[in-house]
Amino acid sequence: MSKTIIFKNRPAGKPSRSDFELVHEEDPGPGEGEVLLKSHYISVDPYLRGRMRNEESYIPPFKLNEPIESMVVAEVVESNNPNFQSGEFVSGMLKWKELQVSSGTGLNRVDRALAPLPAFLGVLGLTGLTAYLALDKIGKLKPGETLVVSGAAGAVGSIAAQIGKIQGCMVAGIAGSDEKVQKIEEDFGLDRGLNYNKEEDMANALRRICTDGVDVYFDNVGGEMLDAVLQNINKDARIINCGAISLYNETELPTGPRPEGILIKKTALMQGFLIRDHAKDFGRALRQLGAWLQDGSLIYEETMVEGFEKLPEAFIGLFEGRNVGKMVVKV
Amino acid sequence: MSKTIIFKNRPAGKPSRSDFELVHEEDPGPGEGEVLLKSHYISVDPYLRGRMRNEESYIPPFKLNEPIESMVVAEVVESNNPNFQSGEFVSGMLKWKELQVSSGTGLNRVDRALAPLPAFLGVLGLTGLTAYLALDKIGKLKPGETLVVSGAAGAVGSIAAQIGKIQGCMVAGIAGSDEKVQKIEEDFGLDRGLNYNKEEDMANALRRICTDGVDVYFDNVGGEMLDAVLQNINKDARIINCGAISLYNETELPTGPRPEGILIKKTALMQGFLIRDHAKDFGRALRQLGAWLQDGSLIYEETMVEGFEKLPEAFIGLFEGRNVGKMVVKV
Repeated sequence: MSKTIIFKNRPAGKPSRSDFELVHEEDPGPGEGEVLLKSHYISVDPYLRGRMRNEESYIPPFKLNEPIESMVVAEVVESNNPNFQSGEFVSGMLKWKELQVSSGTGLNRVDRALAPLPAFLGVLGLTGLTAYLALDKIGKLKPGETLVVSGAAGAVGSIAAQIGKIQGCMVAGIAGSDEKVQKIEEDFGLDRGLNYNKEEDMANALRRICTDGVDVYFDNVGGEMLDAVLQNINKDARIINCGAISLYNETELPTGPRPEGILIKKTALMQGFLIRDHAKDFGRALRQLGAWLQDGSLIYEETMVEGFEKLPEAFIGLFEGRNVGKMVVKV
Repeated sequence: MSKTIIFKNRPAGKPSRSDFELVHEEDPGPGEGEVLLKSHYISVDPYLRGRMRNEESYIPPFKLNEPIESMVVAEVVESNNPNFQSGEFVSGMLKWKELQVSSGTGLNRVDRALAPLPAFLGVLGLTGLTAYLALDKIGKLKPGETLVVSGAAGAVGSIAAQIGKIQGCMVAGIAGSDEKVQKIEEDFGLDRGLNYNKEEDMANALRRICTDGVDVYFDNVGGEMLDAVLQNINKDARIINCGAISLYNETELPTGPRPEGILIKKTALMQGFLIRDHAKDFGRALRQLGAWLQDGSLIYEETMVEGFEKLPEAFIGLFEGRNVGKMVVKV
């Protein structure tokens, strides 16, 4: 018998443990051309909240009473597919199961010599790719510019902020605790950190630390943080709408100050980014990220939660700011 | 004695006649190197409302008790400047005066053979340039795409919409009366027009006429119209924030549904546009606009108000939808 986590209930507001159910199933066996995969590390990501709504979006919603899926690093334990050998490690969009079969489509081989396995869910996975390619395609950083990153101690934010430093920018990071601010300043090497839970007026606080205004904003949170940054943008600023975690649990359409007046006045740009549109650039981006990792100019952190059954808890923790860097569950 | 219009009072909300004062002054005389200009046509534009606020912006605010300024087509009636001859016509950012002197800086000679004089305030002035270059730089129309234009019977909108047709798009226009809708469909050749004053639910109305969704939105009005379009955008849509006339008279920061969620889901772009940033492209754009005018693929309308002293009234009329095409005052 092996474990699976089933999606039981579409959450209204913040997800809770009862929206998920742990079930036991017969161990699956691979059919012709299939591989049997054993999950080692499973990624939990804020965007999964979007798939829990019953709405048409860029990925279909999760179905009730079926397993959740996310990026997983798994070991091939049995193979009837000539492209994969038993003992190899792969990453791919897979189900929250200890054991599962796959046709092999969409699986990528993982090179254990390059980095430890969970890094392929983070800095060398969609997380790092998102940070790198969103800056590359929309941010277009120039040395000397000011980059602000929200969720700067988080998975994507901590990588994006460090890329800003590598590219010669003044980088300010916003995070939710003094410990995180200390980490982004001391470990990730940002110029300034800001604990939004200690600021009454974020727009003023940003003005204090970004004395030359904001040229690029890498937004992982949306909402009031975005409002505050908009009040501080420079001419021709670029705002990367990468995530909006502050809104993901909202049950009504969130409202706020209209941005169009500021966008006109500053001839600024806001653009949404989804990593799935940029697969053709993954190779180039991974080579660059790998090179920065190897020469030490890029570091990464993980928040590792142990135990397959802790998956729902780890996911819910994302909305409570419980992670530094990438949140990963070790099976 | 000649007439001047002085800015007397910063309006709160919609401007009124008493915010302006007509005064009589001694006729000015040109000094060394200067020209004496006689105003023939004066442009009134929604963006002037922004200069009436005492706020830092992309152009300095108007000063109280000094003349308003906007684009003017004027005749050189006396010249002490070797670059200009008496009898020539020029356009430039000039004061609301019947007569004024100028050093000649910033004046452009007007070629009367190309089009009637007021056209140099409209289709061959900043209006046409704005429509053309905003589509060129941000809209990046592809044949077969759907373009929606708000303020489609207005100065910039009516040109932008026709450019969309020239470039092979399905073009829907939004305007404020049945007469305007008839005009944009019959005279300007748009595929569909929508009278926003007759629709209870603009998002649904747009869905009805833009059955393939919206790829590019040329926004001259902002506010609720923008909200409605955002609910209908396609993947990789581009929204040109060119104007926000619906917000210009607001006294408090206007709020509305937050766009960041939709921008992410649709990987869409919103970008502010100001024509003053694109002077280096004016030559190329004017050649194209001139060619389209001459071959008849582009037409234009003017709403001509006669009499210098009617300038405030014409300006206020912009916020009451009293113009079709470019609003111009004939001195």
